[in-house]
Amino acid sequence: MPDFTDNLKPAHDGTQILEAERNGSPLSVQELSKHLLSRNDFLNRQARILEIVEKEPLMSKKNLLNLARPDRYHLGLARAKLIRRLALKHDWNKEDADMAEYLVDEMSPYHLHLSMFVTTVREQGSEEQKAHWMPQILNYDIIGCYAQTELGHGSNVRGLECQAKYDPTTKEFIIHSPTLTASKWWNGTMGRTATHAIIVAQLMLPDSTGNYVSHGPHPFVVQIRNKETHLPLDGIVVGDIGPKYGYTSMDNGYMLLDNHRVPHSAMLARYSHVDPNTGAFSRTGHQAVVYGSLTNVRATIIMHARLILARAVTIAVRYSTIRRQFHDRDDSKQAGPEMTVLDYPTVQIRILPLVATTFALHYTGEAMFNMYTSTRSNIEKGDFSGLAELHGVSSGLKSLCTTIAANGIETCRRALGGHGFGGGSGLININNDYLSKPTVEGDNWMITQQTARYLIKKMESVVAKPDAPAKDGTDALFKQYLKTRNTYKPKELVINGQYIDKAMMEAFEWRAADLTYRAYEARVVQKKGWTSLLVQLHRLSNAYSESFLVSNFHRALVHSSLSQAAQRVMRDMYRLFALSTMDADARTFQSCNAASSGSLDQLPDTIQQLMLQIRPHAVKVVDAWSIPDYVLDSALGRYDGKVYEDLYDRAHRQNPLNRVTFNVDWRSDEIVKGSNDGGKDILAKL
Amino acid sequence: MPDFTDNLKPAHDGTQILEAERNGSPLSVQELSKHLLSRNDFLNRQARILEIVEKEPLMSKKNLLNLARPDRYHLGLARAKLIRRLALKHDWNKEDADMAEYLVDEMSPYHLHLSMFVTTVREQGSEEQKAHWMPQILNYDIIGCYAQTELGHGSNVRGLECQAKYDPTTKEFIIHSPTLTASKWWNGTMGRTATHAIIVAQLMLPDSTGNYVSHGPHPFVVQIRNKETHLPLDGIVVGDIGPKYGYTSMDNGYMLLDNHRVPHSAMLARYSHVDPNTGAFSRTGHQAVVYGSLTNVRATIIMHARLILARAVTIAVRYSTIRRQFHDRDDSKQAGPEMTVLDYPTVQIRILPLVATTFALHYTGEAMFNMYTSTRSNIEKGDFSGLAELHGVSSGLKSLCTTIAANGIETCRRALGGHGFGGGSGLININNDYLSKPTVEGDNWMITQQTARYLIKKMESVVAKPDAPAKDGTDALFKQYLKTRNTYKPKELVINGQYIDKAMMEAFEWRAADLTYRAYEARVVQKKGWTSLLVQLHRLSNAYSESFLVSNFHRALVHSSLSQAAQRVMRDMYRLFALSTMDADARTFQSCNAASSGSLDQLPDTIQQLMLQIRPHAVKVVDAWSIPDYVLDSALGRYDGKVYEDLYDRAHRQNPLNRVTFNVDWRSDEIVKGSNDGGKDILAKL
Repeated sequence: MPDFTDNLKPAHDGTQILEAERNGSPLSVQELSKHLLSRNDFLNRQARILEIVEKEPLMSKKNLLNLARPDRYHLGLARAKLIRRLALKHDWNKEDADMAEYLVDEMSPYHLHLSMFVTTVREQGSEEQKAHWMPQILNYDIIGCYAQTELGHGSNVRGLECQAKYDPTTKEFIIHSPTLTASKWWNGTMGRTATHAIIVAQLMLPDSTGNYVSHGPHPFVVQIRNKETHLPLDGIVVGDIGPKYGYTSMDNGYMLLDNHRVPHSAMLARYSHVDPNTGAFSRTGHQAVVYGSLTNVRATIIMHARLILARAVTIAVRYSTIRRQFHDRDDSKQAGPEMTVLDYPTVQIRILPLVATTFALHYTGEAMFNMYTSTRSNIEKGDFSGLAELHGVSSGLKSLCTTIAANGIETCRRALGGHGFGGGSGLININNDYLSKPTVEGDNWMITQQTARYLIKKMESVVAKPDAPAKDGTDALFKQYLKTRNTYKPKELVINGQYIDKAMMEAFEWRAADLTYRAYEARVVQKKGWTSLLVQLHRLSNAYSESFLVSNFHRALVHSSLSQAAQRVMRDMYRLFALSTMDADARTFQSCNAASSGSLDQLPDTIQQLMLQIRPHAVKVVDAWSIPDYVLDSALGRYDGKVYEDLYDRAHRQNPLNRVTFNVDWRSDEIVKGSNDGGKDILAKL
Repeated sequence: MPDFTDNLKPAHDGTQILEAERNGSPLSVQELSKHLLSRNDFLNRQARILEIVEKEPLMSKKNLLNLARPDRYHLGLARAKLIRRLALKHDWNKEDADMAEYLVDEMSPYHLHLSMFVTTVREQGSEEQKAHWMPQILNYDIIGCYAQTELGHGSNVRGLECQAKYDPTTKEFIIHSPTLTASKWWNGTMGRTATHAIIVAQLMLPDSTGNYVSHGPHPFVVQIRNKETHLPLDGIVVGDIGPKYGYTSMDNGYMLLDNHRVPHSAMLARYSHVDPNTGAFSRTGHQAVVYGSLTNVRATIIMHARLILARAVTIAVRYSTIRRQFHDRDDSKQAGPEMTVLDYPTVQIRILPLVATTFALHYTGEAMFNMYTSTRSNIEKGDFSGLAELHGVSSGLKSLCTTIAANGIETCRRALGGHGFGGGSGLININNDYLSKPTVEGDNWMITQQTARYLIKKMESVVAKPDAPAKDGTDALFKQYLKTRNTYKPKELVINGQYIDKAMMEAFEWRAADLTYRAYEARVVQKKGWTSLLVQLHRLSNAYSESFLVSNFHRALVHSSLSQAAQRVMRDMYRLFALSTMDADARTFQSCNAASSGSLDQLPDTIQQLMLQIRPHAVKVVDAWSIPDYVLDSALGRYDGKVYEDLYDRAHRQNPLNRVTFNVDWRSDEIVKGSNDGGKDILAKL
């Protein structure tokens, strides 16, 4: 319905403002975009898939926040089917389909089928098993999920309670949940969708005296629902666990099994074998390859973290250049247009270091992929020596990078003022979904132990043989540290107004080495209890991971082929990332003599100066991340700057609540005006 | 439907575990509860109202996370009516009704009516206006809201765009929204509920030449909807702004007015007056009382923050004592029950300092109320001298305390592992709702300027007259600082294993004074630009507010009449709060010589030792906050420890998604099995 608001304009024009911002910087967005997003043909793929997906009415982002959670699953399933059909129609490969899911920005109820389910069958199934299952999987004749985590056990896989007891008389495994906490829990795709599951259960086999003993958790392929009725098979209770923080479209499930019998062939047998007649257990081959792929997953997590953070800073930077608030307090006139919000240092300090962080994450994600590729190819040649480092490094990085991104989204959101709390911010969904990341794929406080353990071991070997040739970067660093620890001088980070980029990196490396040495002393020399050291070890892992981020960033700068304009901004980004990270833990840098006290004193001013230098390029820098408006789904972050028009449109023209008039008189039982509902409608939904 | 899972038990019994925890500490929960919750008869009131509210089917907490947002408003309105009826039936006063809303844990669509709407009429209306409006308000014949914030302006009230132009010929004000950004926005109760609004608009009056000039924002009482049809009046466009982060039950609104005429009597006239005939403007009286009530609001915010944080730590502590994970790494057997999660220092360090923080917030909330009461009574006697301090202190505290609580909820949630992400955590709703607090009632990065300005002014006057008698605590501190700044010795915080409680407090005070002096030098002596100092000033405000929290906590200990057992635990809580706060900004404490470098080096160990001492009392300490299970609405945080039983019940017996079977075959258009819906149902909802 037309009304007098149709022709109203906002007091200032966001489109013009962003145009002026873009004209004010010499950066080439295209150059930077290509630099950042060429791996695996990302940019072209994004454009190609976006064009198809965006047109589909079912893929509309409108009104999602108004849907009930059961409807979000309903929608998710419809979209999953559509993506499958589009994939066949347009001959999409796996990466194309993944791109579609990324653009729709919602975890598909089929998600586990083509990730953990197929991966596990492929990596852990025997040739015979693969021949049996793979065609059904790839054709989506069955839908699979991965049932490892339980109500009572997540990280501690060895503690799983679900059992698979072998019965040699019938040649069957009896899969059983002996307790409530043995219930499978959280497993995606399992709640309402899957027909089959990989069930990870304690393999129980009779010993020589006939007593059953556990041989640890093993994977079994089990049909869980009837293919016709889609109802659970007898002896299986399975369902969706209900609403959670995010992932509204995904059916995370629970499942219990009551002495459910499956054939001997159910156990995936590439690396483990149970003799069908005797129940004797044997292992074959080396499972290390599996850990290798874990690292690949973690590299992907880091690359994803950078895009998620890029989305948040894109919204924050664009809106903060359009938004106006107050006059400068020292402006005696207090007239004219109010100040651009992004010109306040208190806004810059929250957003611009995170812009810099997107690049830090990027270069380390790239480095991780390269490290993974080379380690993997060594493994194929039988050389497993790189695995320990890869695993040690990737654990700490997964922890640090997902924590940075999760906190970063929220920091950006709060920097948007009131509208950051609104549905038009575009940050509600990613915040809700992303908050799972610090916990899944290894809890961020748990897995840092692995990095710390790796570092302490490494230091121990370096102390034992300080003169042996260095095997890798960390080795070389620790040797250097041991040699110079009594003569090392705290680094000056800025000399005569010149930033000493290399010194910043070296300060981070020194802190990491020093904290490793302290942890080595506490654990190896003083033999302190591991548990009592956990907080210290967590900090060590973070410090090492930060040093890794800084070094990779620095290395990328040194080898960069960017134009001078881009290079200049990226150098400032590096400095801003390094120095603001340093400022957050300045006392450690001081107490281990990594950086000079004077340099540390100067950090706040140096950081503020860097932000001033970066500020004019902020809009173009976030443009370079090329996040489509369709993905942003944000009134505040639109490329064209029509912030207020879009906010108003969502409220006035899209909100279904405004199509109903209410009876607000407390004396009346009626809730919706004219319905005479007596309030009973809503009571029925509780 | 009964099934084999009905009789399953979890692997370990949460009820027994919590019982053992409670038996293991000599603390009296009752003593502590009374100590904390006696103000305004809180404990008794909670018990009395809970008994009534909990029984009402409409107040059930089941399934809320499954409801669509429009249904949440629908439900909210039904509940608002019910609370009004219960209030009449049980003769509840305002505090009782507020308690009901707190227990239901959902902002009522009537909320603004009995808060900002009635308060503004009462405080700013003339006697005649009050006589006209108050009976209608108190009888709920009209429902009011408060329309100040606009699409383009929040904190900067002077920048509001909505205009109220006086037309002397008709003796009317013409209320008008000249732009889109002039739209009222965010105003609670306005979207679908209110019949009337206080509209804050620029008062435009003709000057001597007939040109209209603004006399700043003023409040007008305006009817916005027809009392019969509940439709907006002509020339008014009003609606709900749509989904946002939290507050699903509240109809935050937008409103634009098209040259809408209201009578002269619409302007609230206690302090301002427009001559009906000439349009001449005059002020009467002192508005300072209004700022006084702002402080009362802020004291309430702090007291609320402590209860919100108490809720989060209650859930975190109870669940972490029940949850088991891994064996101690140094336990060579790796057998027997796994370790209690709360025994890991990495879990303690996230949860226990926040437990201590609930008490820090408590004592400062109490102090703020007392400060407010005495300042208010001085104001009544015409003495406005206390206002500046009250306002200065309360701004920084609002900022710091709401940030602490908002971050604290999320820290607790992440410390819960996977189940923290689930709906059974009980933390999703409070997190979503509470995330508004760092922004509303003064943005947390904006209002710290007010505290900094107060402190710099105070330092300036102390520097000018160092020997004048001290007027208040801050005055005395700054004088002391100036006298001793060249001879002051950094504090030792622990001497021979003894905690020096007073030294901790003094270190905080010293840092606050020193940072104030640096800000004074930068601004007053070196005349640096205000905007360029904003980050520094924000940190100053936080440091001062932290010092205020520590001092109030220390004062409460010194004057405490608690039993020895309680006193001992509270002393450790004080130390843990002070030292973990110090550890987070250790370098500043060092660089301003507030605490000795040796003490600062020892902080991590000292903190870990304190946590060990507190650990056995953790469950009873959180019990003392007396948060009812009905409020917690948390499987993880239940008083009786039946964590897994409750999680399973929510999933298996309550989740509506499990009542439907889906057609998951991508070849079929059907979504719900047997419905032949063709997927069109969900498309219609987009």
